[in-house]
Amino acid sequence: MVDASSRRPAVRGREFFTTRTVAAALRDLPGSAVTGEETVPLDEACGRVPSRDVTAPRPLPGFARSTVDGFAVRAADTYGASEGLPSYLEVVGAVLMGAAPEVTVATGRAAAMPTGGPLPPGADAVVMVEHTQETMPGSIEVLRPVAPGEGVVRADEDVAVGAVLAPAGRPLRAQDLGLLAAAGVTRVPVRRRPRVAVVATGDEVVAPGTAVLQPGQVRDATSSALAALVREAGGDPTLVGPVRDEPGALAGVLRGLLGHCDVVVVSAGSSVGARDETAAAVATLGEPGVLWHGLALRPGKPALLADCAGVPVLGLPGNPLSALVVFRLVGMPLVRRVAGVTAAAPQPTVRATLARAVPSAAGRLDVVQVQLAGGVAEPVFGASALLSVLTRADGYLLVPEPATGLDAGAEVDVVPYR
Amino acid sequence: MVDASSRRPAVRGREFFTTRTVAAALRDLPGSAVTGEETVPLDEACGRVPSRDVTAPRPLPGFARSTVDGFAVRAADTYGASEGLPSYLEVVGAVLMGAAPEVTVATGRAAAMPTGGPLPPGADAVVMVEHTQETMPGSIEVLRPVAPGEGVVRADEDVAVGAVLAPAGRPLRAQDLGLLAAAGVTRVPVRRRPRVAVVATGDEVVAPGTAVLQPGQVRDATSSALAALVREAGGDPTLVGPVRDEPGALAGVLRGLLGHCDVVVVSAGSSVGARDETAAAVATLGEPGVLWHGLALRPGKPALLADCAGVPVLGLPGNPLSALVVFRLVGMPLVRRVAGVTAAAPQPTVRATLARAVPSAAGRLDVVQVQLAGGVAEPVFGASALLSVLTRADGYLLVPEPATGLDAGAEVDVVPYR
Repeated sequence: MVDASSRRPAVRGREFFTTRTVAAALRDLPGSAVTGEETVPLDEACGRVPSRDVTAPRPLPGFARSTVDGFAVRAADTYGASEGLPSYLEVVGAVLMGAAPEVTVATGRAAAMPTGGPLPPGADAVVMVEHTQETMPGSIEVLRPVAPGEGVVRADEDVAVGAVLAPAGRPLRAQDLGLLAAAGVTRVPVRRRPRVAVVATGDEVVAPGTAVLQPGQVRDATSSALAALVREAGGDPTLVGPVRDEPGALAGVLRGLLGHCDVVVVSAGSSVGARDETAAAVATLGEPGVLWHGLALRPGKPALLADCAGVPVLGLPGNPLSALVVFRLVGMPLVRRVAGVTAAAPQPTVRATLARAVPSAAGRLDVVQVQLAGGVAEPVFGASALLSVLTRADGYLLVPEPATGLDAGAEVDVVPYR
Repeated sequence: MVDASSRRPAVRGREFFTTRTVAAALRDLPGSAVTGEETVPLDEACGRVPSRDVTAPRPLPGFARSTVDGFAVRAADTYGASEGLPSYLEVVGAVLMGAAPEVTVATGRAAAMPTGGPLPPGADAVVMVEHTQETMPGSIEVLRPVAPGEGVVRADEDVAVGAVLAPAGRPLRAQDLGLLAAAGVTRVPVRRRPRVAVVATGDEVVAPGTAVLQPGQVRDATSSALAALVREAGGDPTLVGPVRDEPGALAGVLRGLLGHCDVVVVSAGSSVGARDETAAAVATLGEPGVLWHGLALRPGKPALLADCAGVPVLGLPGNPLSALVVFRLVGMPLVRRVAGVTAAAPQPTVRATLARAVPSAAGRLDVVQVQLAGGVAEPVFGASALLSVLTRADGYLLVPEPATGLDAGAEVDVVPYR
């Protein structure tokens, strides 16, 4: 006879006394700590988050510029012009690209003008070449009138001095780099990438490079995937562990990380013991401690978020699939917030028709992996212990908390994986 | 009197004799040349494109594994069990994580079992701890029956030997890295990133780092933005130029690039002369030459695509805004195709209500920049010479070729910038 009491699996870890909806969890993300400022060269700045508004030191384009190929004129010289009664203008020269105009446009005169060329003195508009006719060498007929400013962008029409080229808190896009380049801003103040420690735990977990497994061992699948998601969210991941399931081991590792990490993510192995250990470990690491424990989410319920003296610690479920679902929904927004993102792009989706009914429970957000083909979303079923459910999926859809499921044929919005 | 004939802007460049729709242009992208294979470490593989199917050298998880906390049993021992008439089983020990089971489950016996632990010999199912009761030390009551295989994933249920872990042609996502790590695949065969030359042209164009501009000069805005988009598409950009608007200069530069680039992009300055130069230059660089010249697109009409002895050369419009629109719609798919992508994620969008009417012309695809707020898409108007139209936008919508515009209040799909 064996004493089973010490071997009876603990059920404490399943009592999620501070369960949150995902929306509430996102609302309550610790928001105070944002990384410091650094300066990066423009060509490395895409995706980085400006730490303050970057403003224009000078106007753009900087000079009045033609938007068409044609002739620089005084608009008043063209008033009333028509095909039947054109205005005759003498062509006094041509403006060249990249050089100061050498001509001046007086009344009754015009200057040939390339798109993008600087408007010469005296001119206030550019007539498109298509609206002119050459009559004899050195003169043109203007067939339509132009208003002052027509065919021209003003010297500060793209950007005025002091205007915001790139706002703080919005990750830099390709076009932002373009505008910064145009303004001569080649170094950009941005938030430092958050240092994110990804801590693997579990006696059964070994490094992916382990060629031969001992019985019961599994390679660490979650850390490599999490590192990729951390990078996608703008963070700089460091992989730690695997940490053994021994009392105090995780707390010791976390204590060592808090001083030089901005976010800590604990990938909790797969045993309930390890999950307990995360909650126990963070309880010793500083106030206010656990913010919530348990999400109204499937898969992904056994997650927790703590604030350990200013450093967010996110505890993930043991199943790799569940861990990645929680990290996409909660962890990536957390990393972005610490990275200083205040204006995130909305989550785009692909519209599809649901191939079959999906059950859910009211009060819980369900994340359903789907394959997409020809506008139809086919759910990928399988235990949440199976990572291949995620690799076979093209994206996921959400069954919101109030719903008890979705009907076959429902129109759904799928977030595609990329 | 000046001889105007030599200064009259050329209109040849505006005769787009082989104009394509964007859809036709995408269909006709040169597709034969795909980059070669290289091997990269798993942790650098996210976003890379597998050059062939990566298959499983061994099954996953590799052993029959519990999916719950509970007790490993012989299912037959639980048949007929209920709260009123439970099955009594003797607990012979506990399975530990990461180690071979030291217990065997015979008839009438059970072993304590953590989630993820290896199923011990003799057992064929795991009863959830919630469906058991401890009666006295060393024995449990099972309150519900389990079927064989319940609470367990089979040794090859995630992935069978030889199954595809990551398919050729689909960029690797976070979860793909996870599955590869689980399978012990730490080096991945991928397509080399396409080398993309981004060639700036134009006498007026100077480097972004130029502090003081001469009259008529502009800094190169397009190249920095294009480099970011090339990277986003999986390419490796090299900035070239600016190349002067001199006869033969561009052809000479392109000829030198063809030998060691996979794609060449010409950002054509802003004068019509430079655009002519691109068409003229590619005509000398190998068959079949120009595939199309002119897109049924606004902005972005004056674009061209050539195939110069196997190297695609994309000529972009001179306006930075137009150039970036064309590159997003045509250039990025081209780079992805050369990178070996055959299974691109569908383009996700955000649904919004159009704030005001947008005019268009039938037969032309219109790309309308919009700001997004509260589910409303507000068009950003401004000349296509203004880069700030793009930086103020949160995304864009498409007015398809057959439409003559969109009404205020229309439901639209916006591609958000990220």
